[in-house]
Amino acid sequence: MAWDVLSIIGTIAFAVSGAIVAMEEEYDLFGVYLLGIVTAFGGGAIRNLLIGVPVSALWEQEMMFQIALIAITAVFLFPQNLLKHWNRWGNFFDAIGLSAFAIQGALFAVQLNLPISATVVAAVLTGSGGGIVRDVLAKRKPLVLRNEIYAVWAAVTGLVIGVGLVASDVSLYILFLITTALRVVSYMKKWRLPFRTLQQTEKTA
Amino acid sequence: MAWDVLSIIGTIAFAVSGAIVAMEEEYDLFGVYLLGIVTAFGGGAIRNLLIGVPVSALWEQEMMFQIALIAITAVFLFPQNLLKHWNRWGNFFDAIGLSAFAIQGALFAVQLNLPISATVVAAVLTGSGGGIVRDVLAKRKPLVLRNEIYAVWAAVTGLVIGVGLVASDVSLYILFLITTALRVVSYMKKWRLPFRTLQQTEKTA
Amino acid sequence: MAWDVLSIIGTIAFAVSGAIVAMEEEYDLFGVYLLGIVTAFGGGAIRNLLIGVPVSALWEQEMMFQIALIAITAVFLFPQNLLKHWNRWGNFFDAIGLSAFAIQGALFAVQLNLPISATVVAAVLTGSGGGIVRDVLAKRKPLVLRNEIYAVWAAVTGLVIGVGLVASDVSLYILFLITTALRVVSYMKKWRLPFRTLQQTEKTA
Repeated sequence: MAWDVLSIIGTIAFAVSGAIVAMEEEYDLFGVYLLGIVTAFGGGAIRNLLIGVPVSALWEQEMMFQIALIAITAVFLFPQNLLKHWNRWGNFFDAIGLSAFAIQGALFAVQLNLPISATVVAAVLTGSGGGIVRDVLAKRKPLVLRNEIYAVWAAVTGLVIGVGLVASDVSLYILFLITTALRVVSYMKKWRLPFRTLQQTEKTA
Repeated sequence: MAWDVLSIIGTIAFAVSGAIVAMEEEYDLFGVYLLGIVTAFGGGAIRNLLIGVPVSALWEQEMMFQIALIAITAVFLFPQNLLKHWNRWGNFFDAIGLSAFAIQGALFAVQLNLPISATVVAAVLTGSGGGIVRDVLAKRKPLVLRNEIYAVWAAVTGLVIGVGLVASDVSLYILFLITTALRVVSYMKKWRLPFRTLQQTEKTA
Repeated sequence: MAWDVLSIIGTIAFAVSGAIVAMEEEYDLFGVYLLGIVTAFGGGAIRNLLIGVPVSALWEQEMMFQIALIAITAVFLFPQNLLKHWNRWGNFFDAIGLSAFAIQGALFAVQLNLPISATVVAAVLTGSGGGIVRDVLAKRKPLVLRNEIYAVWAAVTGLVIGVGLVASDVSLYILFLITTALRVVSYMKKWRLPFRTLQQTEKTA
């Protein structure tokens, strides 16, 4: 039950972030809906594909789909009013989505008896795959690949679940709180992963 | 039978549009074929994936594949002669493809007893998914997401079929004519969907 | 056995090329791993999807996955030392990967009794699909679509296997050597496919 509430918050946050990116790129109403839906459900679709769940299982989430459509419509109709709050609360909601979806994705992989690597990939894709597709469709460099620490928290969550450290309901909730908190702190403190710069050679094929 | 003819027209129109984009981007002969094929068949592949039909069902369309290859070869060999006609007739052929593929995609979803949302998504993806992949591979912002009214007509077609308003053969042909006409008028009158501009904040993750 | 060694060389070459592109784009450590993995395994994933093998079969390649992770880690830790050698040997290793993966992909399609067109597409995607996804995620125009002759050698390999010209183990090894050599020569001599330039019209939808 509580997971359902967290999934709803995450779905709204992801759908809204897709709609905002579409409006920033001057996409039309159709583009706003498409980017919102892709951001909310794209990660789960790619995860299903990679771990062997039928992608069409998405259609059982009818209610989530309607919630996402309502959220996108609201953002399109009242952008100024809502975005004021979004700038304050958006990253918090988004962190809830990242955390809840990563746990849900990792549990999917565990149920299928897949190896630990699959658990990690399922957590990462469920948490951040939608945002990657969103950025590609907006012709942007995927934010997840270069900014603050984001998907790594999903990966760590997947690893913790994959090695079997966490299984009971209570411990999953604790894991959820820790992952959410780490993502929020990463954002507020602008924590970044190490990176290296190479001069571009245009040689790689 | 008539649907086969319409599908052939649509396949040629989509393959040619992919080949043209590839030439505009100075892609080489391989890129021209790949973009042509992806535009013609990519939408159907993604639709199959999302509604649960095996993607490999594509290989049963051997004849369509050969028609697309011939069309791409012709455009590459005689661009000047053919593009003169394309500028006049291209959007008309493309509208036929959009309309025929949207109906075909929606009927697929109906046969699988999927919900209305799936019917709409199947119509949209079959009609415009190939063009989206084409634009991503050409490093362009997908035209469908920001210009004239295009994919929305596919969505409306999917909705009309999904709610069961149209089922008989005759009414499907009427729906085809209406959708094609609406797309052609959208193009000629430059009808656009509403859109909103947001200042880019680079804050969404 | 020998094919295993060739697959390992190819996996390392593809993973390293993904990691290099990520560092050139200033992606962070997570982006480096993700682009490396996607380049090494993305082509096989798309091929599986298109020819009807479960994409989740990827998870049986646990060892390849670990080899790729080690290679990416090494490039990230010691870029200067390793890239010196990469500039000399990288394209040679990459050619081995292209050739070995194209043969492996084509054999997959033959085992499934798919038509020749599927054999060609399977060879091309296994050999070059990962590089295309890598470039899209790095917001680059896919190199494969416009530079030296690359994927065409995979297509030719797929065609030769598809029409049944080559079946015995010995002849597959000879095909491997020829494909690798042709790719290396294409690179060294900067062979290019024909291409045509069209003035961009922004009219195609």
